[in-house]
Amino acid sequence: MSIQLQAITQQFHGQTVLDNLNLTIEPKKIYGLLGRNGAGKSTLLNIISNRLFPTSGTATLDGETLHDNDQTLGQLYLMSEVNMYNDHSRLKKLIDSTALFYGDFDRAYATQLAAKFGLNLTQRFGKLSTGYRTIFKLIIALCVPADYIFLDEPVLGLDANHRELFYQELIDSYTNRPRTFVISTHLIEEIANLIEHVFILDQHQIIVNGSVSDILDRAYMITGPDADVTAYTSGLNIIGQDHLGGITANYVYGALEDNRPIPDTVTVERLDLQKLFVNLTNAKEAAAHVN
Amino acid sequence: MSIQLQAITQQFHGQTVLDNLNLTIEPKKIYGLLGRNGAGKSTLLNIISNRLFPTSGTATLDGETLHDNDQTLGQLYLMSEVNMYNDHSRLKKLIDSTALFYGDFDRAYATQLAAKFGLNLTQRFGKLSTGYRTIFKLIIALCVPADYIFLDEPVLGLDANHRELFYQELIDSYTNRPRTFVISTHLIEEIANLIEHVFILDQHQIIVNGSVSDILDRAYMITGPDADVTAYTSGLNIIGQDHLGGITANYVYGALEDNRPIPDTVTVERLDLQKLFVNLTNAKEAAAHVN
Repeated sequence: MSIQLQAITQQFHGQTVLDNLNLTIEPKKIYGLLGRNGAGKSTLLNIISNRLFPTSGTATLDGETLHDNDQTLGQLYLMSEVNMYNDHSRLKKLIDSTALFYGDFDRAYATQLAAKFGLNLTQRFGKLSTGYRTIFKLIIALCVPADYIFLDEPVLGLDANHRELFYQELIDSYTNRPRTFVISTHLIEEIANLIEHVFILDQHQIIVNGSVSDILDRAYMITGPDADVTAYTSGLNIIGQDHLGGITANYVYGALEDNRPIPDTVTVERLDLQKLFVNLTNAKEAAAHVN
Repeated sequence: MSIQLQAITQQFHGQTVLDNLNLTIEPKKIYGLLGRNGAGKSTLLNIISNRLFPTSGTATLDGETLHDNDQTLGQLYLMSEVNMYNDHSRLKKLIDSTALFYGDFDRAYATQLAAKFGLNLTQRFGKLSTGYRTIFKLIIALCVPADYIFLDEPVLGLDANHRELFYQELIDSYTNRPRTFVISTHLIEEIANLIEHVFILDQHQIIVNGSVSDILDRAYMITGPDADVTAYTSGLNIIGQDHLGGITANYVYGALEDNRPIPDTVTVERLDLQKLFVNLTNAKEAAAHVN
């Protein structure tokens, strides 16, 4: 029981966006899908949610091909930046038509969420601010009965209060009805405690695929005088570096050597997920983007 | 030497956006301007930067009225979400015309920043993604010779790597040439360590105006069993509350009572700026937005 992507390649106009990508998305788990701007996150979400047919490779849900399969369609829901709604339609009407398509749409919860977010459902979609468009789409995504919900930039335009409210509602909704969420966002630190498993997409591939706690157990910031840090981290997998005066911070991803003593002058701390992401994806992107 | 706003009121179509607002912006300081969506932050920045003439009240720079004053104009720069650039213009040309207007525009730094952000200056503005439009506007803002720079949503559409690079460049640029920055953003925690002074705009007024360290010295999260927390925080300025099982977290803004013993079951921690902001602005906004 899962979504399986096998050897997925996606090209647009001869450019490779995704290159022979494999991944598994299991039921009832909350995932983070992280990547830099332009890394192909939205393309990947469009393939997983059956909106885009890949150049090559297969995508299946519980063994059934996703593409052109009415049975699987109702089990997947993608909330994306693309506006699918008519500007003139009132929000109440849009909820009605969604409920018509998805039999078990949770109308009561939708009304309750609208009240919590201060969203008046008699308004027309076109009159909403960026933030309230996002909020309306989030409400729909939390109330559809699909088993796999994909959220592409779910907090676009939301202020800190509404972001906090959304994270809280996501947890409550998941607790009441466990299902899979895949969240793609640039606000990595804010979702680090929500997600169980993370995919990092970089250079057209999944470069990190694992449980958040396992990954953070292997991510370190090692700080101290330049020479001491250089000596202590020699041979380790250094993914980034900062300097300030005579102090160096080396970022390490991977096991430290147990039998190497830590000098008194050197501090070893854990990296947070955002800092790990930035360091893992910085160097290559910088090289790729140089003019 | 400062910008002074006195009794500023702004109304649009009979609605009050800013109500009798006073504030001072000093030279060579980095400020945060925080507020919920729709609180009037952009309106305030437009008034301060002389793009909007208020309904009533006065805005002065070093004692000179801002409005219709060519002398003050070159000392103020607003980077906003509004696109002022022609889509067909190449970025190099746009830099040329900015440099023509601002004599001391730092071209060398602009070129250097473009390389760091991976921005090709031979492109046309209209071809840029949301993130790169922001980056181009940030580059201009960091290179104009103005003494007061206002940044309205400076990280819109930027991924975590580019946000980190921007914060670093802001500090470096400020160190090389101290001047005032006023930053308005929803990513509060990310700028908490950058800013010296914070304004919180809520209900058409400035409700918090002070140094970040002073403010955070008065912001607490008090956690423990419901009854113990309620007893310990009784009479204090409780700005918000969370519950989980039998545990309560009360958020307090203001002095704790020194002579009240802290029960063993109760933990007192500091609030971060984002959490403080959310709690200070939540209740009133919720009331205001209810349908």
